[in-house]
Amino acid sequence: MSPVRLDDLSTPALVLDQGRMDRNIARLRGRLDALGVGFRPHVKTCKSLDVARRLMPTPRGPITVSTLKEAEQFFAGGVTDILYAVGIEPGKLAHVADLRARGCDLTVILDGVEAARDLSAFCAERRRGIPALVEIDSDGHRGGVKPEGPALLDVAAALTTGASCRGVMTHAGASYDCRSVDAIAAMAEQERAAVARAAGRLRAAGHQAPIVSVGSTPTATFARRLAGVTEVRAGVFVFQDLVMAGLGVCSADDIALSVLVSVIGQQREKGWLVTDGGWMAVSRDRGTAGQAVDQGYGTVLDADGRSLDGLVMHGANQEHGLVSRRDGGPIDWERFRVGTRLRILPNHACATAAQHAEYHVVDGSREVLAHWARFGGW
Amino acid sequence: MSPVRLDDLSTPALVLDQGRMDRNIARLRGRLDALGVGFRPHVKTCKSLDVARRLMPTPRGPITVSTLKEAEQFFAGGVTDILYAVGIEPGKLAHVADLRARGCDLTVILDGVEAARDLSAFCAERRRGIPALVEIDSDGHRGGVKPEGPALLDVAAALTTGASCRGVMTHAGASYDCRSVDAIAAMAEQERAAVARAAGRLRAAGHQAPIVSVGSTPTATFARRLAGVTEVRAGVFVFQDLVMAGLGVCSADDIALSVLVSVIGQQREKGWLVTDGGWMAVSRDRGTAGQAVDQGYGTVLDADGRSLDGLVMHGANQEHGLVSRRDGGPIDWERFRVGTRLRILPNHACATAAQHAEYHVVDGSREVLAHWARFGGW
Repeated sequence: MSPVRLDDLSTPALVLDQGRMDRNIARLRGRLDALGVGFRPHVKTCKSLDVARRLMPTPRGPITVSTLKEAEQFFAGGVTDILYAVGIEPGKLAHVADLRARGCDLTVILDGVEAARDLSAFCAERRRGIPALVEIDSDGHRGGVKPEGPALLDVAAALTTGASCRGVMTHAGASYDCRSVDAIAAMAEQERAAVARAAGRLRAAGHQAPIVSVGSTPTATFARRLAGVTEVRAGVFVFQDLVMAGLGVCSADDIALSVLVSVIGQQREKGWLVTDGGWMAVSRDRGTAGQAVDQGYGTVLDADGRSLDGLVMHGANQEHGLVSRRDGGPIDWERFRVGTRLRILPNHACATAAQHAEYHVVDGSREVLAHWARFGGW
Repeated sequence: MSPVRLDDLSTPALVLDQGRMDRNIARLRGRLDALGVGFRPHVKTCKSLDVARRLMPTPRGPITVSTLKEAEQFFAGGVTDILYAVGIEPGKLAHVADLRARGCDLTVILDGVEAARDLSAFCAERRRGIPALVEIDSDGHRGGVKPEGPALLDVAAALTTGASCRGVMTHAGASYDCRSVDAIAAMAEQERAAVARAAGRLRAAGHQAPIVSVGSTPTATFARRLAGVTEVRAGVFVFQDLVMAGLGVCSADDIALSVLVSVIGQQREKGWLVTDGGWMAVSRDRGTAGQAVDQGYGTVLDADGRSLDGLVMHGANQEHGLVSRRDGGPIDWERFRVGTRLRILPNHACATAAQHAEYHVVDGSREVLAHWARFGGW
């Protein structure tokens, strides 16, 4: 049987360049090793056991997840050390307890006295043990308690009767809005200092805090020291994307993910190629809109993965993409006739990958080496 | 067994109010009957046989689809009259021919001489018959040939040897950008006039044009006459959404789709509720951003479906939603404690539904009457 090539796939289809991915993983691992800190990769980006196996320090983890569906799927794949890094609410506690009863060392997070009391009451009533990290707000962008405020100690004190404090975690999501590498490095130090300070206060008050967890791809990439931190979480780095390239975290050549599309029409008077890859295939994410260079819905490669520098996907309907020259100039219509395959680089790898059920794996050519399943939902 | 209630579901989850949906369907059907025109509902919004059965004129169709996956799924459910309303390219012709060979009366569309020649060559080589509509550009927003230009007749003439012309179609997507009901009605007339003129030119040149197809939910809602049109396509109307409400196509009370989420945290200093429904659950669509009232990522209902007028989902991370008061005022923190269920109305029903694998069907209360599967992918 002749090998499958990208030309044989029905479009749109999600393409993953394995060589680029492996280099992205090696680069971040090297940095974290040099900083002397543990690694708990976030698998919300890949949602694939095949990818996670290349990411994880050991086959049993540790990993970070954003849903209990991810926890279930990766636990079924043999992973046991799992941090569920979205605030827990009472409706999910029975599921958490069930996963733990089956042998999954699942840790939850919370950032309020009420949630801590709910967890403690559940543990007391069901005679279960569930460990929790206190979420710290290091940048004002989402949830968490302030590292200096009274709430931190109140939350930890409310963890009783089976509910236990395992430490602290934070996510400096504001790093996505930084405008320079120096600003990201400063944000990484702010992230580090927040959890180190919070862990110190917890320990001084007599609580356990074996885990001190930080993470985002930008801060993980540019942190200069991580004293007091035990582990780093990051997810997007595995594929990288145009938002990360716009931040200086990677170059466009590092982006391992793309969406294979076909030209379905030419609008010569308008200067547009119409493709069969719309927002359903690339997502509605416009994360580069606020950056120095707005990349529309994504930049364009040829089917071999070579950059077509002048072209950008400027518009999207559900199953239609509109591609034009960035400078408004004329397109080589003969080169891009109906049926031509193109590849679109994603603004945000998590969002684009989420639109697909499968990775078609290549390594620098059109030959498809493997098909890796990914899952979605909750 | 006690009935399942929304309170029992794991969040986030997609909720469909059947009564609202049925009223939306009856309203549009009534309008099209009054206008004396056929109905070919677009099932790209629902991607569900359970929903489609309530939409379709007969169990065998007709329907409109945006992917060959939809064609396969609905054909497997007994639907045979299907229009694939995204421009065909050579890589999909074998699949189209296979569906037709199995008894599916699938029609394709195209808008260029090159695509018509590719189709004709395929039909000649494989000895197949494939009917096509010529796509007409009625508003400049996407693909199609101009109703007055020479390309229309050139494309039709290039359909030979098994490839046949079945008529014309257009989609006035620019209706989404209209600012008044009168503007939408004018766009509907522009859409109608374009295909009526194109069909007339085709017939005068000796081509067949039994199908003259228009459609978008806004123009279908406000068209004043559809002389010369044989069928209307529309999809979003079945659920409606905040973009449609912003256009005056429906009221917020007509919106049948919502995402059930749970409060997972309170950021009292910031005035935010944090929920477990992020962009993964509601999509990244910000379709109301350019309207008179920007609805953020969606407006907020209580679990019973009653509007919480002051609240809006103003921010989204992957699995986190941020909800605040539109006027920046204080939130009733006791009412919205951790674990409280809320429902988020979607900006764009097609995009929000696409993030989920299942509809949880209710009818004006919290009782879940059914679970209807939906599919995704290509």
